[in-house]
Amino acid sequence: MNATYERTNEAPVGVGLLGLGVVGSAVAASLLSADGQRSGLRLCAALVRDPSRPRAVELPSGTMTTDPDSLLASPDVDIVVELMGGEEPALEYITRALSAGKHVVTANKEVISKHGERLRNLASENGVSLQYEASVGGGIPIINPLLDDLIANQILGLRAIINGTTNYILTQMAAGGASFEDALADAQRLGYAEADPTADVDGFDAVYKIAILARLAFGVSVPVEGIYREGIRRTASQDFRYAEELGYTIKLLAAARREDGGLLVRVHPALVPTDVPMAKVEGVLNVVEAEGDLVGPLWFQGRGAGAEPTASAVMGDVLRAASVFRGRGNVPRARQIDPDLPLLDMAEHQCRYYVRLTVRDQPGVLALIAGALGDMEISIAHVLQMDDDPELGSAELVIMTHPAREANMQRAVERIDALGDVDTVANLIRVESYPSDR
Amino acid sequence: MNATYERTNEAPVGVGLLGLGVVGSAVAASLLSADGQRSGLRLCAALVRDPSRPRAVELPSGTMTTDPDSLLASPDVDIVVELMGGEEPALEYITRALSAGKHVVTANKEVISKHGERLRNLASENGVSLQYEASVGGGIPIINPLLDDLIANQILGLRAIINGTTNYILTQMAAGGASFEDALADAQRLGYAEADPTADVDGFDAVYKIAILARLAFGVSVPVEGIYREGIRRTASQDFRYAEELGYTIKLLAAARREDGGLLVRVHPALVPTDVPMAKVEGVLNVVEAEGDLVGPLWFQGRGAGAEPTASAVMGDVLRAASVFRGRGNVPRARQIDPDLPLLDMAEHQCRYYVRLTVRDQPGVLALIAGALGDMEISIAHVLQMDDDPELGSAELVIMTHPAREANMQRAVERIDALGDVDTVANLIRVESYPSDR
Repeated sequence: MNATYERTNEAPVGVGLLGLGVVGSAVAASLLSADGQRSGLRLCAALVRDPSRPRAVELPSGTMTTDPDSLLASPDVDIVVELMGGEEPALEYITRALSAGKHVVTANKEVISKHGERLRNLASENGVSLQYEASVGGGIPIINPLLDDLIANQILGLRAIINGTTNYILTQMAAGGASFEDALADAQRLGYAEADPTADVDGFDAVYKIAILARLAFGVSVPVEGIYREGIRRTASQDFRYAEELGYTIKLLAAARREDGGLLVRVHPALVPTDVPMAKVEGVLNVVEAEGDLVGPLWFQGRGAGAEPTASAVMGDVLRAASVFRGRGNVPRARQIDPDLPLLDMAEHQCRYYVRLTVRDQPGVLALIAGALGDMEISIAHVLQMDDDPELGSAELVIMTHPAREANMQRAVERIDALGDVDTVANLIRVESYPSDR
Repeated sequence: MNATYERTNEAPVGVGLLGLGVVGSAVAASLLSADGQRSGLRLCAALVRDPSRPRAVELPSGTMTTDPDSLLASPDVDIVVELMGGEEPALEYITRALSAGKHVVTANKEVISKHGERLRNLASENGVSLQYEASVGGGIPIINPLLDDLIANQILGLRAIINGTTNYILTQMAAGGASFEDALADAQRLGYAEADPTADVDGFDAVYKIAILARLAFGVSVPVEGIYREGIRRTASQDFRYAEELGYTIKLLAAARREDGGLLVRVHPALVPTDVPMAKVEGVLNVVEAEGDLVGPLWFQGRGAGAEPTASAVMGDVLRAASVFRGRGNVPRARQIDPDLPLLDMAEHQCRYYVRLTVRDQPGVLALIAGALGDMEISIAHVLQMDDDPELGSAELVIMTHPAREANMQRAVERIDALGDVDTVANLIRVESYPSDR
């Protein structure tokens, strides 16, 4: 906390914490610091499951509770900070807090992406604020800039690396030739990945986050089920080798862009040219690229996770909520829903494709594959024949296509997969478009 | 403007523009657009010098005026937008507008860096807002994030490329081997540099901007005269060649950082390692790196100048001012002044140095130079002997030092310059420190 944050002599604003894990503890430490107290905030209560667990922060006695009802009903609590994660009971507690006229700050991307519209309305009906800057990009200011600073822009597109776990795994695979399994185990050992890594590696986390950003940037309600989602489990170490040979690396991208006829929102691994800045965003860093009609392209980069970066965003929200509570302001409201911007299906996407196949190593295979692609109006830009295995009589083939429609590509892959001389289409990765090749 | 910006049925908020150049015209276009009008803003008056000049935007008849008094006294004008630039009469008009109880939005870095404290107090006394997001970094949201989103952080440091003109010139010199004079002429031809380029190439513009950012980030009042300032006129094409050989490029940096005992604020050309992201910020792009104690390092990048990016920031401020006018909020206030953070003198700076000298090409010269450096406790890391001119009997010598104190380096340079066998110390460039070599 900054020693120069405005002092106040007013009655303290009471804060109740739901959850006291690593982020909750960092927020508690910030509230309990000399500066936190000078700013007029008071930590009244913290909901925990197990009060006996050792924690990084020492709370005033009587603050910890295992009873959500007492915290949510307490007249001392003006702002509820939800840091439990997961859909329930977080959703229930947030709903009850807003209904009771308490301001809410949350870092919960799942709850906001799935129930944000209803919760925003509930907050509005109860004359309180609902903020969630920490739900996307950790400490990177991105939600507030989209809501407020960039409000005069029509946002044309967002493109982001917003899952630190998968970016760490992919960075390890790119640098050291590690397999997905080894890189995942490494991330788990370092605490970057959960024991059950599904939310991260299968792209759910990135889907929640891009749904939140797309709602704010485009004024479109984006149901998470409507977002194309593909994780990184299929990405193999040789994909990095082949991609590098073609001038690319592989990143899990989350993107939303205005196209002809609507908005396309998607999460999937993508080939990114090694010479664009996004290729160099490594490890657990996050980045959000936003393009506005007035401002042009903007780039927001920083630590997308971790206790203290997340606490930075949470505390920014808490201090804003305290201002609102004291009648000194409002938090910016979300753009109104734009009825004229339908969500597009992934079948409408257009890009170049990287296709890795295992084929029988015999003449004529490539002609058959090229024929199947050609039938779907897809032409080949490059072919790499890699890693022959003479014993098995098989070879690995990598094809880069010219730009094609996703629907056509998917049908071509089905046909190629059915060819007798093709063992398997082992991977299909979209190549991200950059202005220079549009 | 975004079609989804909140509609309103309230009485319009009147906007008066001071200045209708390229930025003013872009702001006027935004105000006059369907979305601008729907958002409840009305362009009442625009002050111009010459109403007959052709402009990119057509104003409603009766809007243009050459009389500042009528605009500033008009009861229809609720928000005054100052886009004239320069110190006077902009300062006078802003002062009069605030005193008359009008909200003010300005892009004027010179006025805010020199008179911000007094104007903020005046705004506060009159119960109105004063905003200047467009004064630094064009459309990049940076002032509001520092004032608001990052308020829970103690900011440890800022480092920025915030003058697009000099970055364009240096990028041209780095890429094509152009001389400073040619690159400047090129920038002038393209409209990136003024006919009188002093404000940019001598670092005044960057000084104004870092003074504004330092005030907001550190709660320190930074008089512009107290900031170390060195422009890019001495940077020669061979400096880029030699720097590249050593693994660096050259950028004009503006930086402010907490050091032992205080805050050091400085603007000067610096050697930046070619493998750090800042080395790749090219052309007229701007970037601000901010490091907070909680959030860690953040990176904000975008177009730092131009009509539309600047209009993006101005319109964001205008829409916030309209909210305040309607009693629906306050703009975040600047941090209070921190009395415990004195400004440090450049003599306290520590870094490695790049020294380019022209010397008589004869034995023993290097020993004399090394002796003069050694006397000031500066040791040499590398020596490059370049570009001998046998006819003149002179040679160019480049020395990279180990980290040294600025005060010592300046005294060493004086002594070296006085050596009989040294023609001249042609350039001295500081090497920017990055964590890996700290």
